[in-house]
Amino acid sequence: MSDRQPVLSLSELESFLFEVFPQIRGELTLESIGPMCAAMRLPVQEKHLRPGGTVSGPAMFLLADCTFYAATLAMIGREPLTVTTNLSINFLRKPAAAAPMRCEVRLLKLGRSLSVGEAYLYSSGVDQPVAHATATYAIPPK
Amino acid sequence: MSDRQPVLSLSELESFLFEVFPQIRGELTLESIGPMCAAMRLPVQEKHLRPGGTVSGPAMFLLADCTFYAATLAMIGREPLTVTTNLSINFLRKPAAAAPMRCEVRLLKLGRSLSVGEAYLYSSGVDQPVAHATATYAIPPK
Amino acid sequence: MSDRQPVLSLSELESFLFEVFPQIRGELTLESIGPMCAAMRLPVQEKHLRPGGTVSGPAMFLLADCTFYAATLAMIGREPLTVTTNLSINFLRKPAAAAPMRCEVRLLKLGRSLSVGEAYLYSSGVDQPVAHATATYAIPPK
Amino acid sequence: MSDRQPVLSLSELESFLFEVFPQIRGELTLESIGPMCAAMRLPVQEKHLRPGGTVSGPAMFLLADCTFYAATLAMIGREPLTVTTNLSINFLRKPAAAAPMRCEVRLLKLGRSLSVGEAYLYSSGVDQPVAHATATYAIPPK
Repeated sequence: MSDRQPVLSLSELESFLFEVFPQIRGELTLESIGPMCAAMRLPVQEKHLRPGGTVSGPAMFLLADCTFYAATLAMIGREPLTVTTNLSINFLRKPAAAAPMRCEVRLLKLGRSLSVGEAYLYSSGVDQPVAHATATYAIPPK
Repeated sequence: MSDRQPVLSLSELESFLFEVFPQIRGELTLESIGPMCAAMRLPVQEKHLRPGGTVSGPAMFLLADCTFYAATLAMIGREPLTVTTNLSINFLRKPAAAAPMRCEVRLLKLGRSLSVGEAYLYSSGVDQPVAHATATYAIPPK
Repeated sequence: MSDRQPVLSLSELESFLFEVFPQIRGELTLESIGPMCAAMRLPVQEKHLRPGGTVSGPAMFLLADCTFYAATLAMIGREPLTVTTNLSINFLRKPAAAAPMRCEVRLLKLGRSLSVGEAYLYSSGVDQPVAHATATYAIPPK
Repeated sequence: MSDRQPVLSLSELESFLFEVFPQIRGELTLESIGPMCAAMRLPVQEKHLRPGGTVSGPAMFLLADCTFYAATLAMIGREPLTVTTNLSINFLRKPAAAAPMRCEVRLLKLGRSLSVGEAYLYSSGVDQPVAHATATYAIPPK
């Protein structure tokens, strides 16, 4: 499994993500991809914040979901019908006020029909992860 | 446990929700509350949709999270520091295009420090739930 | 979906379960099956108990896992390679000491490759469910 | 947080585990503990196996649950009333037939009332983890 490499470049994948999810253009950026992993970044915007300035749950969900999707598609190519079947998120710590967030996903298993991974979500200025998630995606049959 | 009643009225709770989460005003409405349960509604808006018109995962997360929060606060009162510790969502079926969504939450357990519940998410026109979630909230000590 | 009926009788399914999982013979019994649902029972045995007499987590996991499997196979037939991909269990209340347990599973979705359901676990003498679980099973391609 | 050290030695903790869970004596061994982490081992026994020799789901649940408990108690001391509130396990790959298993837990957060962690489960001879779990434990108030 460690021989398996991404089949898309970072820019190819980012373009495809913005094509499938136009609303994330300008909202999330694809930072890096590698074998069975990806990282995305959420710079801070008013709409992501709760009163007090902390990043909202739905914004963290968006970041995690997109990063899992990116990590999977990096490995299998442009399969837009790949869908989330489960996403479970543990909120561990309060994010820093109005600070950008970063998500690192590592795929634990990439099968023919399912992709399973885990994500660590970080808030700039907070040392430990603010959230941890696991997700399962269904890969459509060819 | 079946004797325990909500401590807030529907309008008191909805006002409080909009106070704590100003961005949901005009986006979600509190439909009903009862002992250990609540229902909220998400009328459709462009920003909630993915290409093709289906409601996005983050929009469903927002709906589920707010409804769990509402069901909990209906029972314990205005405790704004009640926070989501875990939310796990299973996406079961594709929602109808551009159709409003409804979420019904039932609390399974309401303890001194934790609230645990489950949610069914429905899309107008689709008979079966489009998603199911379970969540745990931490209730701050008095 | 409400037209879909089990393809096995209760005794056919119970026999098959004991064939695939010989260790549950004498340990669990299949109580009932119906469209998209099943119930199993765990009479109490020393090995299931923790000090103090409450049913252990692993025993509850076994009960839930077998009941999910039963509910799925009741609908799709004798597919022994159907496997658990995820099981998430919330422990809500302490079970009664040395009391039998019962699990009711309801399938939320039964697709071609995935079965998703939820389970309520009850302990005799305790009114509310002692645990709640959700699970996803992978159904092998034909 | 990185300054926080276990408050029990490995042998103190193992003795305590066998005291609270007598049935695991001879079944699981505590391999190691460290700041916010622990590892346990399940040597193979007939009762843990399914037909074909693979380790059963309940046996993996037992291993994961005990290791999470060990990692938490290593840090907080002998608090027997620490209980599992949620355990979610993703089964990724088939374990090797009749091979011992090992579980490594890393705590993601250790608060006053909740401990949250993740676990990797390995089967001797299988390079990648066979399962991954996340769990939340409730720590009783002093």
